[in-house]
Amino acid sequence: MAFEHLPLRDDGSPAIGFGGDYYPEQWDRAVWKEDVALMTEAGVNLVSVGIFSWALLEPAEGVYEFGWLDDALDLLHEGGIRVDLANASASPPPWFSHKYPQSLPVRIDGVRLGYGSRQAFCSSSADYRRASAALTTKIVERYAAHPAVVMWHVHNEYGCHNDPCYCDASQASFQSWLRAKYGTIEAVNEAWGTAFWSQHYYSFDEITPPRATGTFINPTQRLDYSRFSSDDLLECFEAEAAIIRAHSPLPVTTNFMGLTMGLDRPIDYWKWADRMDVVSNDHYLIADDARNFQELAMTSDYIRGLADGAPWLLMEHSSSAVNWQPRNIAKKPGEMIRNSLQHVARGADAALFFQWRAARAGSEKFHSALLPHAGRDSTLFRDVVKLGAYLGKLGEVVGSRVVGADIVIINDTDARWASELDAHPSIDVTTVPETRLWHDALYRGGYTTDFRRATDDLSGYRVAIVPVQYLMTDAGAANLRGFVESGGTLVATYFSGIVNENDHIRLGGYPGALSEVLGIRIEEFFPLLQSETIALSEFGAGSKWSERGTVSSARVLAEYASGPVQGSAAVTRNAFGKGSAYYVGTSLTTGGVSALFAQVAAEASITPFVSVPQDVEVVLRSNAGTSWAFVINHTSEDVALSLDGVDLLAGSPTGGSLTVDAGGVAVVRLSTPIGDS
Amino acid sequence: MAFEHLPLRDDGSPAIGFGGDYYPEQWDRAVWKEDVALMTEAGVNLVSVGIFSWALLEPAEGVYEFGWLDDALDLLHEGGIRVDLANASASPPPWFSHKYPQSLPVRIDGVRLGYGSRQAFCSSSADYRRASAALTTKIVERYAAHPAVVMWHVHNEYGCHNDPCYCDASQASFQSWLRAKYGTIEAVNEAWGTAFWSQHYYSFDEITPPRATGTFINPTQRLDYSRFSSDDLLECFEAEAAIIRAHSPLPVTTNFMGLTMGLDRPIDYWKWADRMDVVSNDHYLIADDARNFQELAMTSDYIRGLADGAPWLLMEHSSSAVNWQPRNIAKKPGEMIRNSLQHVARGADAALFFQWRAARAGSEKFHSALLPHAGRDSTLFRDVVKLGAYLGKLGEVVGSRVVGADIVIINDTDARWASELDAHPSIDVTTVPETRLWHDALYRGGYTTDFRRATDDLSGYRVAIVPVQYLMTDAGAANLRGFVESGGTLVATYFSGIVNENDHIRLGGYPGALSEVLGIRIEEFFPLLQSETIALSEFGAGSKWSERGTVSSARVLAEYASGPVQGSAAVTRNAFGKGSAYYVGTSLTTGGVSALFAQVAAEASITPFVSVPQDVEVVLRSNAGTSWAFVINHTSEDVALSLDGVDLLAGSPTGGSLTVDAGGVAVVRLSTPIGDS
Amino acid sequence: MAFEHLPLRDDGSPAIGFGGDYYPEQWDRAVWKEDVALMTEAGVNLVSVGIFSWALLEPAEGVYEFGWLDDALDLLHEGGIRVDLANASASPPPWFSHKYPQSLPVRIDGVRLGYGSRQAFCSSSADYRRASAALTTKIVERYAAHPAVVMWHVHNEYGCHNDPCYCDASQASFQSWLRAKYGTIEAVNEAWGTAFWSQHYYSFDEITPPRATGTFINPTQRLDYSRFSSDDLLECFEAEAAIIRAHSPLPVTTNFMGLTMGLDRPIDYWKWADRMDVVSNDHYLIADDARNFQELAMTSDYIRGLADGAPWLLMEHSSSAVNWQPRNIAKKPGEMIRNSLQHVARGADAALFFQWRAARAGSEKFHSALLPHAGRDSTLFRDVVKLGAYLGKLGEVVGSRVVGADIVIINDTDARWASELDAHPSIDVTTVPETRLWHDALYRGGYTTDFRRATDDLSGYRVAIVPVQYLMTDAGAANLRGFVESGGTLVATYFSGIVNENDHIRLGGYPGALSEVLGIRIEEFFPLLQSETIALSEFGAGSKWSERGTVSSARVLAEYASGPVQGSAAVTRNAFGKGSAYYVGTSLTTGGVSALFAQVAAEASITPFVSVPQDVEVVLRSNAGTSWAFVINHTSEDVALSLDGVDLLAGSPTGGSLTVDAGGVAVVRLSTPIGDS
Repeated sequence: MAFEHLPLRDDGSPAIGFGGDYYPEQWDRAVWKEDVALMTEAGVNLVSVGIFSWALLEPAEGVYEFGWLDDALDLLHEGGIRVDLANASASPPPWFSHKYPQSLPVRIDGVRLGYGSRQAFCSSSADYRRASAALTTKIVERYAAHPAVVMWHVHNEYGCHNDPCYCDASQASFQSWLRAKYGTIEAVNEAWGTAFWSQHYYSFDEITPPRATGTFINPTQRLDYSRFSSDDLLECFEAEAAIIRAHSPLPVTTNFMGLTMGLDRPIDYWKWADRMDVVSNDHYLIADDARNFQELAMTSDYIRGLADGAPWLLMEHSSSAVNWQPRNIAKKPGEMIRNSLQHVARGADAALFFQWRAARAGSEKFHSALLPHAGRDSTLFRDVVKLGAYLGKLGEVVGSRVVGADIVIINDTDARWASELDAHPSIDVTTVPETRLWHDALYRGGYTTDFRRATDDLSGYRVAIVPVQYLMTDAGAANLRGFVESGGTLVATYFSGIVNENDHIRLGGYPGALSEVLGIRIEEFFPLLQSETIALSEFGAGSKWSERGTVSSARVLAEYASGPVQGSAAVTRNAFGKGSAYYVGTSLTTGGVSALFAQVAAEASITPFVSVPQDVEVVLRSNAGTSWAFVINHTSEDVALSLDGVDLLAGSPTGGSLTVDAGGVAVVRLSTPIGDS
Repeated sequence: MAFEHLPLRDDGSPAIGFGGDYYPEQWDRAVWKEDVALMTEAGVNLVSVGIFSWALLEPAEGVYEFGWLDDALDLLHEGGIRVDLANASASPPPWFSHKYPQSLPVRIDGVRLGYGSRQAFCSSSADYRRASAALTTKIVERYAAHPAVVMWHVHNEYGCHNDPCYCDASQASFQSWLRAKYGTIEAVNEAWGTAFWSQHYYSFDEITPPRATGTFINPTQRLDYSRFSSDDLLECFEAEAAIIRAHSPLPVTTNFMGLTMGLDRPIDYWKWADRMDVVSNDHYLIADDARNFQELAMTSDYIRGLADGAPWLLMEHSSSAVNWQPRNIAKKPGEMIRNSLQHVARGADAALFFQWRAARAGSEKFHSALLPHAGRDSTLFRDVVKLGAYLGKLGEVVGSRVVGADIVIINDTDARWASELDAHPSIDVTTVPETRLWHDALYRGGYTTDFRRATDDLSGYRVAIVPVQYLMTDAGAANLRGFVESGGTLVATYFSGIVNENDHIRLGGYPGALSEVLGIRIEEFFPLLQSETIALSEFGAGSKWSERGTVSSARVLAEYASGPVQGSAAVTRNAFGKGSAYYVGTSLTTGGVSALFAQVAAEASITPFVSVPQDVEVVLRSNAGTSWAFVINHTSEDVALSLDGVDLLAGSPTGGSLTVDAGGVAVVRLSTPIGDS
Repeated sequence: MAFEHLPLRDDGSPAIGFGGDYYPEQWDRAVWKEDVALMTEAGVNLVSVGIFSWALLEPAEGVYEFGWLDDALDLLHEGGIRVDLANASASPPPWFSHKYPQSLPVRIDGVRLGYGSRQAFCSSSADYRRASAALTTKIVERYAAHPAVVMWHVHNEYGCHNDPCYCDASQASFQSWLRAKYGTIEAVNEAWGTAFWSQHYYSFDEITPPRATGTFINPTQRLDYSRFSSDDLLECFEAEAAIIRAHSPLPVTTNFMGLTMGLDRPIDYWKWADRMDVVSNDHYLIADDARNFQELAMTSDYIRGLADGAPWLLMEHSSSAVNWQPRNIAKKPGEMIRNSLQHVARGADAALFFQWRAARAGSEKFHSALLPHAGRDSTLFRDVVKLGAYLGKLGEVVGSRVVGADIVIINDTDARWASELDAHPSIDVTTVPETRLWHDALYRGGYTTDFRRATDDLSGYRVAIVPVQYLMTDAGAANLRGFVESGGTLVATYFSGIVNENDHIRLGGYPGALSEVLGIRIEEFFPLLQSETIALSEFGAGSKWSERGTVSSARVLAEYASGPVQGSAAVTRNAFGKGSAYYVGTSLTTGGVSALFAQVAAEASITPFVSVPQDVEVVLRSNAGTSWAFVINHTSEDVALSLDGVDLLAGSPTGGSLTVDAGGVAVVRLSTPIGDS
């Protein structure tokens, strides 16, 4: 189904979604009316309802109680607030877990987890699947035609607390998944390399989840278990989404947890994204991360990549502190507004929050909200009203796409998962940190960056970055080779292209998948000690990794000037086809990446849209001949930019030049549009 | 039953209890005689016997073997040594655990613990309760009339290793406890805030202990489980005490583990203390704590508070090193004597030890004792003899009460437990460290401090300190308000009065319970990063916490001079009724507390009894017109004090002035008594 | 059976074993031929085959499939490569674990581990024992007469991942073991000191493994469980070895994991070594250990001690990085050759590797091999060829023994295990680190050191070092006393001789077992804080430990010049019989040990064979009137030595003087032989 924009305004004109999770069931009805009034004051136009309502909506199996939800939706509708309605499957009630204890998830060590928290179920549980389907049916039947409802919110943050599960039902599902994938047990043995350590299987029945063992378990088994776990949860989503779609034409989504590319979660969001009518994401800052605004930008770029460049929805973020970190740091003045505008700048058509009203009880009562414990008379709520006013002026950008990204970062979930397996040369070397390093350097340089898989169409890009893509399929390698042959510039780091999709080494010299295009042959890895750094002849210092090999056709740009392989090639460039391929054999500093990338950019003839000081973020969106520049000033200095157009927040022309205050934001409808992507 | 003093001397005169745990069953009978002789040499007058004797006293269920204990008690009696006789229920024997495996405790992750250690039982086990009652009955029947026995020692260090338990029997008991507390399941839902995260219960049968879950479990469920666990163990104590009291008029106690207010144990000692005939405590120094002598003082003050000011008994401490810390540091010269005198100074009428004779085998063989492995010919034993002689001169203080405390620290077990729940703004902010900070500053200033609950009678105090009392009941808040209205000075810190007894936020601006009396309204918390400090305009620097709000009627004493809320009020004072209320929005340094408290003390007109250098501890006890000053010099310099009276240890008048050597102690019967408290 | 040397050459002349684990089952048959060709190129003469082949050799219970192994052995034989054939019992197949789930090992917390890794069995499992015996029988019947086979490799690295096990079968075996050891339950109670903490047992049936408990479990129970676990695994070895020996006269071994004296593994290698036809060992460097070449030397000395001085076999080491450390550091230029020569210098007659060809899949694919992923055209393989050539020149040293060790380090497995029990004075004080400290100081000084048990014949040594031998039997103490009485020099450290074989304190003053011979009586231990150091009047500074006692007949060599026992004796010397006994009451620095040992060496008239700079390793082997000096230069400077003889690697006479390059090695057949040991 084609998703264009949510009908958030009565006149049908587009609007940026603004609002958040709303839990009327936690409050007396008197509060509901105050809620709608204050939502209106703040400019809220969209709330998510019912996410954790299962226990109240279905008091006993097959018995439903919808009265309170009817009333809440009616009240919201009267107030003009649109609803993203949940199917409430996120957390089964205590009565369910008590009745079906086998539905509870089991840890890797065999401990069956209890309930009383949230998301306490195994995705392979037939009881859970039956019950969630029944509930979904009831909800969609009842509310498909409700005038407040504009979207369906399936479940919540899949896999946040219950995945992977290692129970016997999961084992049976895993065996079925393997049968479907491999057909024969011999194919499993070949893929898993079970000739090693006496691991040969003679029957699918013998196969277990990768439970706690005395030492390293088969790595391909672990990789397949991540794939299976993602697919098993996806089956849950698809079953519930199918029920909804059978009853309603409204768009269906589930909120991803895409923070830093999903971190260590067993969800392949690339695969999931294809099943969404619109991609949506939750994002929270990590307090201890001094550059968490850059991490936010990276995650937004990643989410936009999942959506293949289309607009997406920010389903949750926070007005200030969260509650689940060791120290939950409140946002500084202007930070909430900057964060929201960053998401919109990078493709979001909604900036929603967890949550509307701060809870009084429970585990999230110290999570910030649009309406804090202190109530309406608070600095925070005044900032919320200001943000609502800002977003209200940006309806025209809805549906536009981010443009100006000449650079793409290659990101495969399989590559990340495989990089995080054990018994590797160095625990310091995984996909996510190296990806972050490169994105950060590009962010500081003012470049906009996209994310795509190795097998995706890269023809729109001039430069492709391959950061620790340890696992690379034949198809991915061929696609990257074609990219360079056609004139693209590839920049690959160490520990990329090492294994195939089964985590088997590509023999004959590393990196087997890319050796030819890079013009190098690595013989041996020389990881570095924990805090060790080594000097390079150019581009500063390296850490984590070095290696020894030979250059075939490549030219050496930098050698190791110290360390275990002093004198060996560290950074190389290979002319290949119409393009070129750089290789970086160590983890550079941010400055080193910037210095190297300056050469790459010069060669590829790419420059940022405008020249700005570091950490003044400028992103372009464009649509049908109109373009907008988003400017977010993360620095403590005012900044002046040459931008001609209309300052939408101020409501006035820039006259060619714009000053954005320290910590401030601006959105300019450009007088000279940029071509659509 | 009124407890006055133990009959430790044949002539009926009072004596400070001196001695310790005694385990004749670990030694040949030849050793017993040497023990009694050496006890006599050391001045020992009281030993605790039978604590871990269950396995020997009851070789099989219902079969008893008391011969060796008869002989041991007779021998002690002949030597004039009094006995604190245990009911031996502390550790069920292997045969019991083997026969009743369901009696073994279960961890939060479902692992049932084994035996072969100690205290391996679940307090909800009907088998354990039946067996311990039977044993208690046999012991009290046999020894109630034994002339050596002067007191009953129920169990040992309740909850040290086996609590809370998460087994199915505990679950059933918890459900019963909840039924009794709440009456209806709806009341549980309201108290626990189960509208959150789909946690609504429809039956008590659905409720479980807060077992391991995927993420945060309901916090009020956790809080109630701590309350339940304390009550469940208390039922064990009360059942055994009731059997004893039915047969014997002698005082009954159980030894608390009050170190630093019980740390993270699920025991509400305030509630337990009411059930004791005399409060007793075990205390051990933490080697890594450079100011562990101040911690000792604080714990003694806390124990005295539990006893409502009455004398209490130090049931265990150590002559030198313990065995259970990573590095078990031996005591320095004079340290054992200083420690013992500190306890007596702060209200103890006994200074007992674990243990009389150092064990030869088992897990505590490296725990120090009054008689070390090296035997009688040792520096340690000579110090023990010296301590015995000192204590022998202090019989006259028995029954007196500590006087001179104008300051009370408010301490509720519920507040501490709740402060330690998860998903809070900062893991650095809990009750115990902030309480320690304030006690330490007052200790350094020479002030004596009491401990009481928020709901206790505070009319005898001029200043009440409220350190991170995160949970505050309506009754507690009203009592503190009344204290200020009546002219008292309240000093409350950040994160006090935030929630009610159900851990529900007091809405409308923090700290809801104290906003009016403090004249402030906090809107948002700004916890600090781990090692972050911020400057204040007065009182130095803050750490851990800051906050933003508005001052209603209060006056600002200090502002934040840096950090996320620079310019906001950090320390305030509010005139209220006849008194005043200070508020401190961050964690000050010890110096900052001292500087602020200097203002408070001046306003409240309180001063230390004598002016002494820091860490020269002076405490007063008083009784029926006689007062004693205890002086413990923790410094490495001799100190001179103006004290007129009789130096009891030297046995001579001070002539108005007393010099206490570096590391030394003195007890002076004052020529001018202090009024009783 | 007398083991002299393996028949590795067709002409019957001795050869150093060179090769490694070989896994033909992981590769296509085409690769096998390349393997044999490259083995020949490298000089490989011995490979271990079949270690992890159970799953392929026995596809179902009682069904065997030997075809591929027949072919592989034939091919190796054709190529002249000898085979160390495994009985393949190291890892039962998935079908076995699936069929017999009770055979899987159980952790201390009751979690039964899964399979899919390796070594997933409990040594007490009757099913495992029956199945491994059946497999062993089939293999030895089939291959006893195969001309390639020269040795039997039972199992692999016993106890690496599955021991100790805490399952019910282990419990039953433990009870039987205790019955056999103690006869009566009363003897168990006496040995375990169960009068403590109500631990008395009335029946062997009540006894469990030392499973997870609430606090410290009985320490003697833990010690006996380590002994039992070692014995239980040893039963597995002996059962399989007996089957082999009944069919074949070839030598039988199993590869030990002797790294740093076995670290924390529950294997008593001293006991095991007696059951081997030839001792063999696996050794890997720890990357984070800056002096891991000295650790290698120490481990080799330890292994040679296990073999009672006879030659042993290095069954596995690595050509470069391993795969199981956090950061797996590759070997530097020359390091592989230095390491191999170190092993041979210190008594190894083989230098084998894990593994021949680097794996393509599985958990060890990043473990280095003789043939790397890059293949034959690689620096690493060229170094392998060089090493093969070197070893090929050293056949004449086969069968010789290391000579020149005047110093013996006392090492009892019981003492190490007991030192690692809990509830001790300090967690910093265990046998292994103190042993390493002393060995390192002696290594730096150029001394060769042997290892023996306290009860072994020490008559060949002049100096015996006793480093933290906390547990000492009466027999051991008597033997050490006799050693001194006869003129030997004893050097004992703190925390030696404290307990007897049951972990019972030797009463009356520490160290009970050695007080008289040392002429001291320690009263109390004063462990130090974690980073605390204290000054000594001689020999520098101490850490970890200090103590207070009295000197009876000893002379004080150094006092504590700071710290808690300032002024007490720290280092003493006692003349006793014809010898002398030194005592060191703290952990010295390496420099302090060297300074003290200079006095000891002068007194004992021992000097290194040649004077060389630190870390130039010189070790002598000798046999029937011929002696060889191995020189390994670990420094970055060339070194010249006065050595007259034939440089075997260069193939030329030294002319009295030899220069070994920085990082280089040399082996000289001395013109003047050293007397055999």
